[in-house]
Amino acid sequence: MRDLTKMMHPKSIAIIGASPKQSSVGNELLKRATEAHFNGQIFAVNPKYNEIEGVPCYPNIVNIPTPIDVAIIATPAATVLGVVKDCNSVNVKNVIIVSSGFKEIGEQGKILQDEIVNFANANNINVLGPNCLGVINNADDVNFNGCFAPIQATKGKIGFATQSGALASGIINLLPTLKIGLAQMVSLGNQAQINILDIMEMWEQDKNVEQMLIYIESIPDNARFREIATRISKKKPILIIKAGRSERGAKASISHTGSLAGDDTTAAGLFASSGVIREIYLRDLFNTAQVFSKCPLPKGDNLAIVTNAGGPGILATDTANDYSIPLANLSDETKDKLRAVLPAQASVANPVDVIASATAEQYEAATEILLKAKEVDILLVIYLYIAGRNDIEISRHLEKLKAKYPNKPIVSVYMTTPDFDDLVKTEVPDLDIPTFNFMVDAIHGISRLIERKNYLAQGNKITPILPVNQKRANEIFENAKAQGIKQLTTMQSLQVFDAYGLPLPKFGIAQTLKEAKDIADQIGYPVVLKLSSKTVTHKSDIGGVITNIKSEEELGFWWNRLVDRLNKANLVESLDGIVVMQQVSGANRELVAGIIKKGDTHQLMFGLGGIFVEALKEIAFRPCPLTLQDAENLIDATKAKNIMGFVRGGMATDLRIVAETLLRLSQLVTDFPEITEIDANPLMIDDKGRLICVDARIVTE
Amino acid sequence: MRDLTKMMHPKSIAIIGASPKQSSVGNELLKRATEAHFNGQIFAVNPKYNEIEGVPCYPNIVNIPTPIDVAIIATPAATVLGVVKDCNSVNVKNVIIVSSGFKEIGEQGKILQDEIVNFANANNINVLGPNCLGVINNADDVNFNGCFAPIQATKGKIGFATQSGALASGIINLLPTLKIGLAQMVSLGNQAQINILDIMEMWEQDKNVEQMLIYIESIPDNARFREIATRISKKKPILIIKAGRSERGAKASISHTGSLAGDDTTAAGLFASSGVIREIYLRDLFNTAQVFSKCPLPKGDNLAIVTNAGGPGILATDTANDYSIPLANLSDETKDKLRAVLPAQASVANPVDVIASATAEQYEAATEILLKAKEVDILLVIYLYIAGRNDIEISRHLEKLKAKYPNKPIVSVYMTTPDFDDLVKTEVPDLDIPTFNFMVDAIHGISRLIERKNYLAQGNKITPILPVNQKRANEIFENAKAQGIKQLTTMQSLQVFDAYGLPLPKFGIAQTLKEAKDIADQIGYPVVLKLSSKTVTHKSDIGGVITNIKSEEELGFWWNRLVDRLNKANLVESLDGIVVMQQVSGANRELVAGIIKKGDTHQLMFGLGGIFVEALKEIAFRPCPLTLQDAENLIDATKAKNIMGFVRGGMATDLRIVAETLLRLSQLVTDFPEITEIDANPLMIDDKGRLICVDARIVTE
Repeated sequence: MRDLTKMMHPKSIAIIGASPKQSSVGNELLKRATEAHFNGQIFAVNPKYNEIEGVPCYPNIVNIPTPIDVAIIATPAATVLGVVKDCNSVNVKNVIIVSSGFKEIGEQGKILQDEIVNFANANNINVLGPNCLGVINNADDVNFNGCFAPIQATKGKIGFATQSGALASGIINLLPTLKIGLAQMVSLGNQAQINILDIMEMWEQDKNVEQMLIYIESIPDNARFREIATRISKKKPILIIKAGRSERGAKASISHTGSLAGDDTTAAGLFASSGVIREIYLRDLFNTAQVFSKCPLPKGDNLAIVTNAGGPGILATDTANDYSIPLANLSDETKDKLRAVLPAQASVANPVDVIASATAEQYEAATEILLKAKEVDILLVIYLYIAGRNDIEISRHLEKLKAKYPNKPIVSVYMTTPDFDDLVKTEVPDLDIPTFNFMVDAIHGISRLIERKNYLAQGNKITPILPVNQKRANEIFENAKAQGIKQLTTMQSLQVFDAYGLPLPKFGIAQTLKEAKDIADQIGYPVVLKLSSKTVTHKSDIGGVITNIKSEEELGFWWNRLVDRLNKANLVESLDGIVVMQQVSGANRELVAGIIKKGDTHQLMFGLGGIFVEALKEIAFRPCPLTLQDAENLIDATKAKNIMGFVRGGMATDLRIVAETLLRLSQLVTDFPEITEIDANPLMIDDKGRLICVDARIVTE
Repeated sequence: MRDLTKMMHPKSIAIIGASPKQSSVGNELLKRATEAHFNGQIFAVNPKYNEIEGVPCYPNIVNIPTPIDVAIIATPAATVLGVVKDCNSVNVKNVIIVSSGFKEIGEQGKILQDEIVNFANANNINVLGPNCLGVINNADDVNFNGCFAPIQATKGKIGFATQSGALASGIINLLPTLKIGLAQMVSLGNQAQINILDIMEMWEQDKNVEQMLIYIESIPDNARFREIATRISKKKPILIIKAGRSERGAKASISHTGSLAGDDTTAAGLFASSGVIREIYLRDLFNTAQVFSKCPLPKGDNLAIVTNAGGPGILATDTANDYSIPLANLSDETKDKLRAVLPAQASVANPVDVIASATAEQYEAATEILLKAKEVDILLVIYLYIAGRNDIEISRHLEKLKAKYPNKPIVSVYMTTPDFDDLVKTEVPDLDIPTFNFMVDAIHGISRLIERKNYLAQGNKITPILPVNQKRANEIFENAKAQGIKQLTTMQSLQVFDAYGLPLPKFGIAQTLKEAKDIADQIGYPVVLKLSSKTVTHKSDIGGVITNIKSEEELGFWWNRLVDRLNKANLVESLDGIVVMQQVSGANRELVAGIIKKGDTHQLMFGLGGIFVEALKEIAFRPCPLTLQDAENLIDATKAKNIMGFVRGGMATDLRIVAETLLRLSQLVTDFPEITEIDANPLMIDDKGRLICVDARIVTE
């Protein structure tokens, strides 16, 4: 782990390239640093001045009489290496390079950047950036603002790290509106050396950072990200926006799985597997962040809604339903208590409608009754200012109730006049309850609280080791390798699946019609014939699959036809046998599973199969090795779950067997990392609910 | 059409139940009316005072010496009928009843309410409410505020009508934050007499109302709503929130279609068919409203994005992609022009990244080049305040450019400091460009502009009359009626479908094995046998469907088995024949179509069929009679469209035939409105892309 303590907690900083020119980066940096009430010394470096903005200025960092913990460099790109060398010469081991003109502008800039990183690595220098906005540490005993955002960042509990420096600036501007504050901000810039993983590990240890908000465009190292994020997300929420979703990342591939594995789809699986909460839109990221900043995790999912108007109550109910959040079923006891404090026309069902004339005291009484009720886990308070203003009083009451019921999240929606925010600041300065203008933003945040509670309840992730015949699989792979086969034949693929305990129909391999007949006799008619060839990849394209063969006569007829076809296509030589397989009947529900290797990680796919794979794209990915939790989540991740239950003419399938099948596939690539693609497609469910993998395809490196 | 001119444009109003008590409804009403600079006379009515809040007060409306156009009544429910009679006695023909205690509290209140409405109807009195917030007409020559929301409503071009009065109050509070203004507000209350349809027709004629925002919980009359909304939406946008989505409205039903027809699903179809834009969340409603208030409709869909930071550009691109909005492909000419005005490091691809150092002038130049470019239809301008503030200057430029390029929508996102809104108010007071904090809100609004442009481009709706054999269908219905059959037998249903030109496989009806063999010979083996019974509804449940009969022998065998089964089940008497139908082969794509009668309107359903109907719920509804446009939109409305194209092992189907099939079903219920349910399920697509309806079910009243 990289030690960034000094970088974020300096006692002295130097701003190299400081400038008196208003609105210049060198000037803004200096202003932000001084305005922040930095608990340390600030120096400017610029050969032209003795002092800038009241800060002593030196011609070079080497001239500063005090040891410097962090140098912030804003000089032109070409000068930066020299500046870093100067820093090193006076033992400055933390540099933040805000200058641009490096890798982001192309090859020439990349050379400059590499030189700096090489020098830094050789001399144990921490380098943040280049091409970044800088950093902020808002801890009261530090107050370090080393960035050029136009205003100071509201203090809070959030660590915000971003690959887009400008975005940090934009967000810092919006913090008061978003009602959140930052503990630290790190603008990653080009991540030439320090990257997001270093920052996550730093924040893991920092008690001031209670949640992490991350904007990234790419993940530096999938496997390390997974390891670090999985560990950290057990302790602190990680909220991520990953931009570049619309980019098409699927590579040319011979498997279904490969053709469906876009970069973003697999990133989604990585986040889900690592306990990271992925938001799609910035708006939602910050709404969730507000709720996480100000709410405990709930004990259960049951939401109670209090409102002084029916319409918004219905809208909130609709929205809770959209997010699958159950409304608490209020007990008779709770209802009686509510009746005792509310006007006769009030509704004591959930949503509780205290009606428009409700006083602040009635709101307080009703909300306390609900917070006390054991059937309520989460409280949403909606207030519309109609006749007689109660918003400030209600927030005051809620803040008191929060202290009294610290384990139940309270989220509020105020449809009130725009002066509310300013009034709250003076009247209830410590208000620490999320407030929104609209129900959907509140409920979105609540849904994330529930999601996180559920994630933590899963406990530690387990990757079970299932009993398989690894030795047998190894023989098949060795044999294929010896023959120079990269894409295993159908026979070989089925044999590997069989060795790994995947749910195949009965099958055997025949070299002669006699053998085929014996196998068919053993497994019983009807059977399927499948060509197993070293070269023919799409069996059905050349008519290499014959289904529903009902008798020995039909078998003979079709066997000869197949051999004929092979002769005509000059493919006899590449044949390694014909698979005789039990005909699966009563199976009209098709799933699909598969694995694709992307970079160093295998990605397992699961979802709706058949012609619906492409048409509906109800598929999801998780990185391998799959944990039991990953397998279970994957089953729930798409609408595929809806066909695994009881359907007209078909029994429910055992989801434990589905999960086990996915785990067996994952174990296969863990044991044989040279596998690049697997299709277990289609994966049928028959009318008895049995899971059967009807075809197999394995490709190796 | 109800004449509400005087109600909304009064020259004199009386507030009955006016009160000096602060925060009381009677006091708030009086204050709002006087503060609004009403262009007319205001009178208070209260026997206890001669004057309230500086307004002359009379004991009864009959004592007021001036004729009164509108009476606003805020007295207790029990007194209201008397007050209305008083009003009538002095020829006051428009009353707004804000008092509550009517239908919303139960039977007793309903009686009071009915009495008032009966009296009003008998005396040509317009009644708004009861149980409402009142009305606002912000027209400069009227300035009528007849409601008790706590503040005046910002002026603007929107008509806002709501079934929840409190919501109107909440929204009026938020208008400055939402950056929109109201031309008129109508709180509908209990809609005892005046309902949403009256208001829509009133606004249709009012040039001050340029768009309608509507919050409803129920639709008073589906058919009239469709007629009125379809007409109006050609002229003005109608944006609707319909609350109560989560309510389960599907009735017990014997058809698939019926079991899937929830109230909200069919309402969604009604809105789509009527050109109404339905928003799900209030937040989105008001974001869309802002865009509609300040933007023309675009000529095309192509979006250009200007940003001073890469990250937000990528996020905007992702979001545009989510909404299927294409990014304009900038021409070389446009790129050259951009290069000439922008710094070297700027990106002239779309999104155009003018980089962080861009001046307001560079923003202006780049945005003008894009607005001029013929390949650009819509412009999204993103500005993050980083070093050097340009937000105000940029908005000033954009406002000028809007005047210069009035036909291209410009939408802006500013991630700037919270003082921006106040600064704009003084610096660019006429700014009439939508501004948001986040890209997604801007792009959501843009997507609605495109949706509306596309809707208007469809032209007038047509319900084609297709050639059918109505006479033959009539005979079958008459025959069924004569037999007392409500659910037509399979035979009858198929015959009706046949008469209406639906795409059936070849079939015939046999009473004897001999007949069956003749039919099978004619249509060719393999065939299917289907029991056609007057009582057996679920054919397959008693094994009444035998598929894949390949020969005369098999036909004989199965015919006898069927007859046996019927004998055992004592069902022979109810038999009206056995259908012999061509076996459809190569069809593994299943759609579903059907119709259900709800109230007075027939709702046509279309979507993914087979086991996926329930599992995936990829279905949508449209009201009958279906227009050609409805049929086309319905085909696009769900993921069913993805299986109608070319899929592995299947050719694309002709969408015109799909549309025609839906229109024929619609025509069937138009001609025979006594039909309550139809299932055309499954509706298969075979490997050649042919659409084939394999089964039919018709239920009548």
